[in-house]
Amino acid sequence: MIKQLTIFGVGLIGGSLALALRKAGYCEKFVGCSRNANHLQRAVDLGVIDSYTLDPKEAVKGADMILLAVPMRAIKPVLSSIVDHVQPNAVITDAGSAKGSVIHAVNEAFGDKSSANFVAGHPIAGREKSSVEAAIDDLYIDHKVVLTPTAETSTEAVLRVKDMWQTAGATVETLDYKQHDDVLAATSHLPHVLAYSLVNTLSKSQYGDAVFDYAAGGFKSFTRIASSDPVMWRDICLENKEAILSALNDYQQDLSDLAEMIEAEDEAGMTALFENAKATRDRNID
Amino acid sequence: MIKQLTIFGVGLIGGSLALALRKAGYCEKFVGCSRNANHLQRAVDLGVIDSYTLDPKEAVKGADMILLAVPMRAIKPVLSSIVDHVQPNAVITDAGSAKGSVIHAVNEAFGDKSSANFVAGHPIAGREKSSVEAAIDDLYIDHKVVLTPTAETSTEAVLRVKDMWQTAGATVETLDYKQHDDVLAATSHLPHVLAYSLVNTLSKSQYGDAVFDYAAGGFKSFTRIASSDPVMWRDICLENKEAILSALNDYQQDLSDLAEMIEAEDEAGMTALFENAKATRDRNID
Repeated sequence: MIKQLTIFGVGLIGGSLALALRKAGYCEKFVGCSRNANHLQRAVDLGVIDSYTLDPKEAVKGADMILLAVPMRAIKPVLSSIVDHVQPNAVITDAGSAKGSVIHAVNEAFGDKSSANFVAGHPIAGREKSSVEAAIDDLYIDHKVVLTPTAETSTEAVLRVKDMWQTAGATVETLDYKQHDDVLAATSHLPHVLAYSLVNTLSKSQYGDAVFDYAAGGFKSFTRIASSDPVMWRDICLENKEAILSALNDYQQDLSDLAEMIEAEDEAGMTALFENAKATRDRNID
Repeated sequence: MIKQLTIFGVGLIGGSLALALRKAGYCEKFVGCSRNANHLQRAVDLGVIDSYTLDPKEAVKGADMILLAVPMRAIKPVLSSIVDHVQPNAVITDAGSAKGSVIHAVNEAFGDKSSANFVAGHPIAGREKSSVEAAIDDLYIDHKVVLTPTAETSTEAVLRVKDMWQTAGATVETLDYKQHDDVLAATSHLPHVLAYSLVNTLSKSQYGDAVFDYAAGGFKSFTRIASSDPVMWRDICLENKEAILSALNDYQQDLSDLAEMIEAEDEAGMTALFENAKATRDRNID
């Protein structure tokens, strides 16, 4: 049970957690904080949070659980603004898509203070709409939340964060942050980069927007993630830069090999590649 | 109205057209032909076609409309096997995703004979399942069918094919075949190549199939088309090779530029690129 959950950045991710915990009766009070009073007021109007403040120090007053659901580049400044003001028993967690940089930010923001109560986390769920209006109470049901505790992290803090996400319907796992960042670079960050890049390439077509008149369902689903929040994804590219560049480099090499197969009309090579891809996907994705 | 529609290759595309025309009462008799009696018998059992034969000459007997819905590389051999046996009033059309190579195949197969009654066509619709079991009578509703008649093509033949597809619920347009192939390379063929290639890259992950445990909805929709039929897509890569390689080259260049932006942590550049992609997609795709 949580007495007060303070959410920094009340959008899809934070808002959906609040709605899920509210429905479960797991938390008494929800407080929001960001730099945008209009957004926060909307979250109040929608019944997602009970109250809000623009002052981070004020926001963490009384909070025994704090979620940072802001774009990744905002995590460190928010941490720095609250580190001297959180209650001793308060657990802090985040929802950033890359964990190495968060752990780095935590070390910098906490300095000599213990960061035992900070639990780096990543709910692997989302929609292409990112505002609080898109928040739903079942976003996390049957989705994974990955926690990446370090040697510093308190076991009790991990259990409290785990319990919270499980109450929202998620399956919680722990991973080494480096492994998390490698895997997510490949399965999430790279596809987003590829989808944004494809729509960008097509936006320069000699046929103009008319090119999209001939897009069918395949294009629509392939590019769905290119409608995601640009600032959020810019930050992820910055915060998981090395792993993303590594995955992108592997991909570009494989793509060049495939281009050579097409050029050489290598029927057997193409068939093997497409069959391997189809079999791999059919085996692993519902 | 059609007296007898003969379909070569009774899978998703041909089967869905048959079901739609049957529902509309637009065609009296449906005959299937391919090299696989089991598939054809299943199409009969499912009520998609009335009868079948493995003999192309037999199949076109009595047909006033003939649809070639085979993988693209099979179009020319099928045409060669029927060109001397079709009724004088029979219209032939196809469903291949690239039109230049079909028109080339028609010229070769027809030789000195008039190809006025051949109408090259492309229904822009599909599902990742490609068998006759996946055929549905509403596949073409609100989808485009592009016809690419040449100077040779009879206007009456175009109108008959147009009427057939409209009866199945499609919106029919005509385009120059070169423009069709360029546009489809960008909006359909390239995304398939990219999706196959991504899953192929991930299939070589050091984490094995476990990498897919952390794939969320974004990955699922991005790679949906990588579950498409490998032979069909190998053929499309071969039959629209130049346009696909050109689109792929543009894409790889843009992707390298984006990699450089990420490497250089060019925040403004990334923001502009992602915002342009999101705005372009949101403006053009429902």
